[in-house]
Amino acid sequence: MDREDSKPLNGHARKPVYGAIEAGGTKFVCAVGTGPEDIHAVERIPATSPHETLGRCINFFRSQPKIEALGIGCFGPIELDRRSPAYGHVTTTPKAGWQHTDVVGPLGEALGVSVGWDTDVNGAALGEARWGAARGLDTAVYVTIGTGIGGGALSGGRLAHGLVHPEMGHLLLPIEPDDLGFAGACPFHGARCWEGVASGPAIEKRWGRRAETLEADHPAWDMEARYIASGLATLVLVLSPQRLILGGGVMEAGHLFPMVRKHLQTALAGYVQAEALLSGIDDYVVPPALGTRAGIVGALALAELAARSV
Amino acid sequence: MDREDSKPLNGHARKPVYGAIEAGGTKFVCAVGTGPEDIHAVERIPATSPHETLGRCINFFRSQPKIEALGIGCFGPIELDRRSPAYGHVTTTPKAGWQHTDVVGPLGEALGVSVGWDTDVNGAALGEARWGAARGLDTAVYVTIGTGIGGGALSGGRLAHGLVHPEMGHLLLPIEPDDLGFAGACPFHGARCWEGVASGPAIEKRWGRRAETLEADHPAWDMEARYIASGLATLVLVLSPQRLILGGGVMEAGHLFPMVRKHLQTALAGYVQAEALLSGIDDYVVPPALGTRAGIVGALALAELAARSV
Repeated sequence: MDREDSKPLNGHARKPVYGAIEAGGTKFVCAVGTGPEDIHAVERIPATSPHETLGRCINFFRSQPKIEALGIGCFGPIELDRRSPAYGHVTTTPKAGWQHTDVVGPLGEALGVSVGWDTDVNGAALGEARWGAARGLDTAVYVTIGTGIGGGALSGGRLAHGLVHPEMGHLLLPIEPDDLGFAGACPFHGARCWEGVASGPAIEKRWGRRAETLEADHPAWDMEARYIASGLATLVLVLSPQRLILGGGVMEAGHLFPMVRKHLQTALAGYVQAEALLSGIDDYVVPPALGTRAGIVGALALAELAARSV
Repeated sequence: MDREDSKPLNGHARKPVYGAIEAGGTKFVCAVGTGPEDIHAVERIPATSPHETLGRCINFFRSQPKIEALGIGCFGPIELDRRSPAYGHVTTTPKAGWQHTDVVGPLGEALGVSVGWDTDVNGAALGEARWGAARGLDTAVYVTIGTGIGGGALSGGRLAHGLVHPEMGHLLLPIEPDDLGFAGACPFHGARCWEGVASGPAIEKRWGRRAETLEADHPAWDMEARYIASGLATLVLVLSPQRLILGGGVMEAGHLFPMVRKHLQTALAGYVQAEALLSGIDDYVVPPALGTRAGIVGALALAELAARSV
C-alpha cells in the first residue's frame, strides 16, 4: 500500500494534501491532511438535505489549501460501478431526501479533483491497510458493531465489490440455543442475520437495557461475544482474511475482545488450521489501530488511491 | 481474462499448450490442451500414495507434447503463501499418506515448467471466468454441492486467498424451523454449518435415503433448496458476486435451480437492491457453463495464469 511522496519542491519533499469526507447518516465529517498524523482541519457538518450538506462540504474545502484528490467513505447502499449512470450516487437508502442522490458528481465538479468513492467500511478497511492494523496485509476485514453492523474487506489488495458492495452485517447466523425465543432486531431478517442478533439495538431489545449500561459480568456479553464470533467465523471461512479488525460502539466495551477470540476458536472448531487462529489469536482479532478515526482516515486513503489511479 | 495467443509460427497462430491436473481425494485427472474446446489427452489416475500418484502424473505429461505451464486445482487444505516453505503442499488433509505433501515441487521440477496452484474450487471459478458462466465478470463465486460443499471466488479479478483459502462449505447458517432436531453431518460443526445440513451425506442422514433416489416432489428438495439459498445469501452479503455458479452432484438434480433462486430472494428479503437478484435471478444463479469439466478446465486456466505471471 506504499506510495512515493511527490517530487521534492524547492529542495523539500512535499507530501500531497488530500481531502476526506466520512459521510454518515447523521453527519458528514470533512478533513484535509496528508495522513493520520497530519490532519490539518476537521469540520463536522450535519446531514440535512443533500443540497445543503454537500454545499457546506464544498465551502469547507474551498476554504482550505488546494487538495490533490478527495476521498469519500459513504453510508450505503451506494453505486460503485463506474459503467453505471448512477456511479457516485447514494441509492436506495431509507434516509429521507437522500434516495438516488449524486454525491461524487457535485463535489468532484465543484472542487475540480478526482474522487475516491467507496463505502465507509471499505474506506476504513483501506485506511487500516495503509496506516493501521492491516498494514502489509492484502486480505483483511474491518467490521463495525454499533447501531448497525457493517463490514469492509480488502481481498488480494483490492476493496471488495462486485454486484454492489458487501453488506456483511446481514450475513445469516445460527441462533444461540439460549436465545431461541428472540425475535431479532433486523426489519429485513429478524433474528436470522448478524445485525438482527448482535447490533446495539438487538442487545437493548433482548435485555431491556442499552449495552453501555450493562455490567461487565452481565450474561449479555457472553451471548454478544458468541454472536460476534459466529459472524467472524463465517468471514474467516468465506474470505480467509489475514486479520479481523473490530470497531464500533459495542466493541468499545474492551472486555469483549478476549471473549470474542475464545468463541471464534470454538465456532471454527479447529477446522481451519492456521497459527493465527490458534496461538496467534490475540494478534488476529484486534481493534482498529486508527481507533475512532478509522472512518475519516479511511476516506483519506480513498483520496490517495484515487490520486494514484489517475 | 483475455490473453493474446503466441506469436504466429510459420504464418499460423499457435495456441500455447498447457497441462492440467484436477487433484481430487480419490483420483487425479490429468489433461493437456489449449482450452475447453481443445483438450488433447485425458488420463484418470487413482489417488494412491503421493509417490505413485505424482509419478504417474509425471509419466503422463512426459508422454505428451511439451507443455508451457502446468495448472493444478487441488483438494485442500493447501498452502498458497509463496513466502511459506510449505508453498505447494497439501497440508492437514485427513487423506491418509497425503498430510504435508509437496505437490508443486516434484511436478514442477520433473516437467521443468512453472506451476499454477490453487484449490480445485478456486480453479473452477477461474475457469468459469475465463471460458464459462463468469466470462467478463471480475467477482464471481463457484460452489460445488455434493459429498461436501466447497466454494471458490474471484474478487476484483483475483482468486480469493489470504490467511489460507476460503472454506465456504463450513460457513455457519440458521437451522430451518422444520429441521430443529437434526444433528447435522459435519464432524466439526454438526448442524451449524452449510456442509453439515446441505451436503449429500446430510441429505442421506436426514431422510434415510441417498439424494439421487429421492423423487422430485419429495420434501427433502424444498429444505435442501432453502439451505443452499441461505448459504448463497451469506455469500452475496459478504462478497457481492456478480454471479453465483452452482455445480456438484446434488445440483445435477436440475429442478433445484428454480427453487434455490426463489428461496435466495426470500432469504435476502429485498435487502440488496439489484436487478440481478430480482428480475435477473435466472441469469444470476446458474450451473457451470463448463459442466462437469469445470474442474479440469479450471486447472488449465490456472496453467495459463501461471504462464502469464512468469
